[in-house]
Amino acid sequence: MRAFMDSDFILGNDTAKHLYHDYAKDLPIIDYHCHISPKEIYEDRRYDNIAQIWLGGMNPDGSYFGDHYKWRLMRSNGTLEEKITGDAAPYDKFLEFAKALEMAIGNPMYHWSNLELKKYFGIEEPLTPENAEKIWKITTDKLQNDPNLSVRGIIRSSNVKYVGTTDDPIDTLEYHELLAKEDLGFVVCPSFRPDKAININKDGFVEYINKLAASVGKETLTSAQEVCDALGERIDFFKKHGCRASDHGIDYVMFRPCDISEADEILAKVMRGESITTEEAEKYQTTILLYLARKYRKENIVMEIHYSCTRNINERMFKIEGPDTGFDMIAKSNCYNELAAFFSELDKTNELPKTIVFSLDHNDFNQITTCLGAFQSYEIPGKMQLGAAWWFLDTKDGMEEQMKALGNLGLLGNFVGMLTDSRSFLSYTRHDYFRRIACNLIGKWVEDGEYPNNDASLKKIVEGISYYNAERYFGI
Amino acid sequence: MRAFMDSDFILGNDTAKHLYHDYAKDLPIIDYHCHISPKEIYEDRRYDNIAQIWLGGMNPDGSYFGDHYKWRLMRSNGTLEEKITGDAAPYDKFLEFAKALEMAIGNPMYHWSNLELKKYFGIEEPLTPENAEKIWKITTDKLQNDPNLSVRGIIRSSNVKYVGTTDDPIDTLEYHELLAKEDLGFVVCPSFRPDKAININKDGFVEYINKLAASVGKETLTSAQEVCDALGERIDFFKKHGCRASDHGIDYVMFRPCDISEADEILAKVMRGESITTEEAEKYQTTILLYLARKYRKENIVMEIHYSCTRNINERMFKIEGPDTGFDMIAKSNCYNELAAFFSELDKTNELPKTIVFSLDHNDFNQITTCLGAFQSYEIPGKMQLGAAWWFLDTKDGMEEQMKALGNLGLLGNFVGMLTDSRSFLSYTRHDYFRRIACNLIGKWVEDGEYPNNDASLKKIVEGISYYNAERYFGI
Amino acid sequence: MRAFMDSDFILGNDTAKHLYHDYAKDLPIIDYHCHISPKEIYEDRRYDNIAQIWLGGMNPDGSYFGDHYKWRLMRSNGTLEEKITGDAAPYDKFLEFAKALEMAIGNPMYHWSNLELKKYFGIEEPLTPENAEKIWKITTDKLQNDPNLSVRGIIRSSNVKYVGTTDDPIDTLEYHELLAKEDLGFVVCPSFRPDKAININKDGFVEYINKLAASVGKETLTSAQEVCDALGERIDFFKKHGCRASDHGIDYVMFRPCDISEADEILAKVMRGESITTEEAEKYQTTILLYLARKYRKENIVMEIHYSCTRNINERMFKIEGPDTGFDMIAKSNCYNELAAFFSELDKTNELPKTIVFSLDHNDFNQITTCLGAFQSYEIPGKMQLGAAWWFLDTKDGMEEQMKALGNLGLLGNFVGMLTDSRSFLSYTRHDYFRRIACNLIGKWVEDGEYPNNDASLKKIVEGISYYNAERYFGI
Repeated sequence: MRAFMDSDFILGNDTAKHLYHDYAKDLPIIDYHCHISPKEIYEDRRYDNIAQIWLGGMNPDGSYFGDHYKWRLMRSNGTLEEKITGDAAPYDKFLEFAKALEMAIGNPMYHWSNLELKKYFGIEEPLTPENAEKIWKITTDKLQNDPNLSVRGIIRSSNVKYVGTTDDPIDTLEYHELLAKEDLGFVVCPSFRPDKAININKDGFVEYINKLAASVGKETLTSAQEVCDALGERIDFFKKHGCRASDHGIDYVMFRPCDISEADEILAKVMRGESITTEEAEKYQTTILLYLARKYRKENIVMEIHYSCTRNINERMFKIEGPDTGFDMIAKSNCYNELAAFFSELDKTNELPKTIVFSLDHNDFNQITTCLGAFQSYEIPGKMQLGAAWWFLDTKDGMEEQMKALGNLGLLGNFVGMLTDSRSFLSYTRHDYFRRIACNLIGKWVEDGEYPNNDASLKKIVEGISYYNAERYFGI
Repeated sequence: MRAFMDSDFILGNDTAKHLYHDYAKDLPIIDYHCHISPKEIYEDRRYDNIAQIWLGGMNPDGSYFGDHYKWRLMRSNGTLEEKITGDAAPYDKFLEFAKALEMAIGNPMYHWSNLELKKYFGIEEPLTPENAEKIWKITTDKLQNDPNLSVRGIIRSSNVKYVGTTDDPIDTLEYHELLAKEDLGFVVCPSFRPDKAININKDGFVEYINKLAASVGKETLTSAQEVCDALGERIDFFKKHGCRASDHGIDYVMFRPCDISEADEILAKVMRGESITTEEAEKYQTTILLYLARKYRKENIVMEIHYSCTRNINERMFKIEGPDTGFDMIAKSNCYNELAAFFSELDKTNELPKTIVFSLDHNDFNQITTCLGAFQSYEIPGKMQLGAAWWFLDTKDGMEEQMKALGNLGLLGNFVGMLTDSRSFLSYTRHDYFRRIACNLIGKWVEDGEYPNNDASLKKIVEGISYYNAERYFGI
Repeated sequence: MRAFMDSDFILGNDTAKHLYHDYAKDLPIIDYHCHISPKEIYEDRRYDNIAQIWLGGMNPDGSYFGDHYKWRLMRSNGTLEEKITGDAAPYDKFLEFAKALEMAIGNPMYHWSNLELKKYFGIEEPLTPENAEKIWKITTDKLQNDPNLSVRGIIRSSNVKYVGTTDDPIDTLEYHELLAKEDLGFVVCPSFRPDKAININKDGFVEYINKLAASVGKETLTSAQEVCDALGERIDFFKKHGCRASDHGIDYVMFRPCDISEADEILAKVMRGESITTEEAEKYQTTILLYLARKYRKENIVMEIHYSCTRNINERMFKIEGPDTGFDMIAKSNCYNELAAFFSELDKTNELPKTIVFSLDHNDFNQITTCLGAFQSYEIPGKMQLGAAWWFLDTKDGMEEQMKALGNLGLLGNFVGMLTDSRSFLSYTRHDYFRRIACNLIGKWVEDGEYPNNDASLKKIVEGISYYNAERYFGI
């Protein structure tokens, strides 16, 4: 029996151990997509205790910050909501989490949480309800006093080279600007996330468009063309701050191209307060997405697309807690034809940017990978990428399935690898988790005689997936 | 090489063996959902031979009883229908089954059948065409003479504590009442299965509604409200007989709420012999299902939902043999949004009952598990459950996939575990099969260092999945 | 660690080694479905070099021949199109392929390519950019001079007993006729592939129908009935040349039966140059497919159906390179109900032929297998077959998943096994690859104690899947 989470955690064979310890482990981290706050980095925030950084709480405006993965786990264990997102004492919440975690065999949370306790707090024993109090004291002390456990300390001690935050087009990027002037030991760049300018059928769209207008010195925007122009101007601004990636979170991929004049009129209708059909919404969205993709291509910005999620399915809880509080569901989208048509339209005129596609539905992996394979290009190895297993799929099983899909149907050696997609500063351990899983998979193939034990090739592949492919892809 | 089906069958590592032999094996069985006959239990029926209990035959009314799993296997082996459901001699049928079984490598039937021969008849060698005659003689003798092989003997010697039968709302429950008066050593309670009152678009609906009316002392029912009232009255009656669970077998999940008056008129149309649209059928069905769910919640009855099946796809054979004779197909339903909307509607008013969802499509597991995760509650750990792998998925691969989905996306430790869903009294070995598979999976995680070798936690988890979670969930 | 691709390649346990080396390895090959050219067999063609046989090039008419699997791999590695399908020197293309192959860990191409180098050229070291030149020289010399490396030499030395080519109904079968007169050591028979007569909604249909008319001595065909009659006449002609199988490549399975007069009018409209709706196209297609299926049944010809593919999704590249050049995508079809209805319609009148169904979507395997299970028959064990993992799924993972689906839900012992579906004469190694994977899977079950170590049964199953089931099924 192997010990739980020792230095060879996940590494089930000698080749895996060699590849991980000698090639993967010490490479820096490029965290090209996350949701951490540049303000907190700038202010070098400290957290009061482990409950605060893990479980969060309510913001002054009534919205929540925290980790909805953990909240779901606790709800599945019958925890009172008061001890999840409510007013209960932080330690009580932490204790409830420890109780839920004990039952979470087979859940990535079990690994993530204990990896974080080990790496950042030196705690070797897994968290249980029994040792929760002891661990609470140790972690509280370190969070408040250890120089490696301020926000900057965590990033530095995690060997992070590049942090790609996720930012709204109207963001002033003031903290990115301040951070750029400091000698941090790592780089923090913005990523462009214009979902709010695309979600024409969601609440708050008109207000948002007016804010977008303000960000380019206008009072309002009255046509799709003007929205495009404003977004383009903001991309130029982001680009000046080192932006290398954009991100799009959409329910599903649509493709319903139309004349710009038609899209203009649809935008105008919505700005006038009139309602539009789903078909009209898709026309507007397609127009904006095509514009943005072309602009990304021109500016050498990577386009990321995340889809196949149905959000806020529990109406009662949505009213109480708002979005991103743990009430979302994996969707089934069946939009491969639209994805292909979108890429084809852009490729026709050589305007298809480097693109990474993430779907929440693992049943999609083969379809998406074969779709992407039809748009690869001489410009760069692996121009079109199936993104690492994401959110609900960000598990050992999910990551292995994603890499096997890439292996079987694409070129695994060119994969740009892991990202945290996280709101928590402790999540860098997920890169370590990913590297272990990748080395284990590759090592097993070698041990089973399915790929030769050619160390030079294996080094190239493992180092590529861990670091160099992303460095090349994002031009870092 | 490990011996076939020895005492460590399926248990591929030492931790698995320890967990199974020391914790799982000897716990009683809660078979919370099956299709065995309370009449046969009351009469303590004996079977003449193994062909009768395994392969069944034609009932006097021309319908069939027996095991359509086995019939399909024989048809796939080119067996004459005469030797499957026809008039051939029982031994000839048994011999043909032995021939098919030899080719059934990788099929759960291979395991189930040989587990039953071993447990109930002490036969150690796997069934083959060569030893079929010998096994025929042994089993015939034991079935006719062994006190442990009457129906009650089988249940008792299988260490069954609770049997949840599946019963029509109009059932008199006379045998449940008779059984309740006896000292059986186990409890037999009815489960409420009102499909016929919901299938407004199927043959025989009007006749059924009139029978339902009769069961509450009325001549007929003329509105959806009256159907609800009658079903509610029957639930009260079932509840008095210890009912803890209901079951719904539907092709797909619909959600099309309407005013009760509209549903009333739809029911009235059908009772008048008029035809209705699919949309109208779904409105009626949604109305009844919402009513029932609320009633279940009030009465603390678990709601089970089985879906994603297309039945009777072979028209020729359906005309000859009728339903449930082995001509069904796994469907793809894509009804997650409806499932979520149904739960959300009930949860809004705190009227969502404990619910177990079973889908025949394993591609649904992630969608369903994330949907359920959005409706968990402080009321009980694991209020919303992904049911054990069912019917066509009731295989080692299917069970592992179901438990991995739960592990990755939910809380495996709170899983209520196995049920037989069986018409055969010998099927209790499937609980043993399940426990072995669960222990093997959990043991492997521990051996691989993915969960700590913390015996107290492992005991809690394994005993919970095997028995205690179901005991708590169903209030047994 | 096991050596890469030694004699026990893929065989991870002793039982697997025994089953493969003692039972599977030396059985002849029935390649019942491939795309090799009977003309090249007749002329006993030689290839100039490994680039020509592996990577192909442009035909005089501007279309391409070659291996789009390999082209995709190279595009994913950022290879210039000139060095894929363009005018670059053959060696330069080969070198680029070697570079891509190094990164293709986890890809079946890695295995196929190196298996071919080993079997046909005696090369023991895996291809890398470093040894590419040396391997180029060895392979060029052998291809030009080794008597076992002419087309006939390859087929003979591969122990192929039966080659089923894929032929258009209008084909004269002149090379089949010539080949039938020779003592080849193997048999080459045509398979009937009437896609062009069914694709009423694709370009070139009218021209094709006129060619079909010419093939039966008519000027044109003016009704669906006449199309059926012409196809029937060509089936009779194919049958005389030993045809045992047909093939249908369709995007999805449709079932929209109509009166023959309606189908007649639809055909007539198209022949007059008028446009038709999708519904009309499906009516025509259903009519023809039902006719053909009945004819196949009468003539004891196996019906193969391949579906779930979206072709030519990259519009720019399609214009440059045409079809079958590596720009296709796995589709999701959701047409199980249509598949079931098609089979049911035929089975009603006992006119359902032996049928093999191949889907590109592995998520379909359970649905299709349970559908097929409802139409099995006493006529022959395994009348309805889930085809071997095909095209994008033709990987170790894909083949294992297909066999597990068959094992769990059907009767694996009756599986007709592998086909190459290949345009390359070197692809017979895929049968070897398949047999190794099948023996490994079966061996593992035995080693794990999940099937008894009954050598007689195992021999029957392994030899059946490798050879005898196909021999029986196709009547060879």
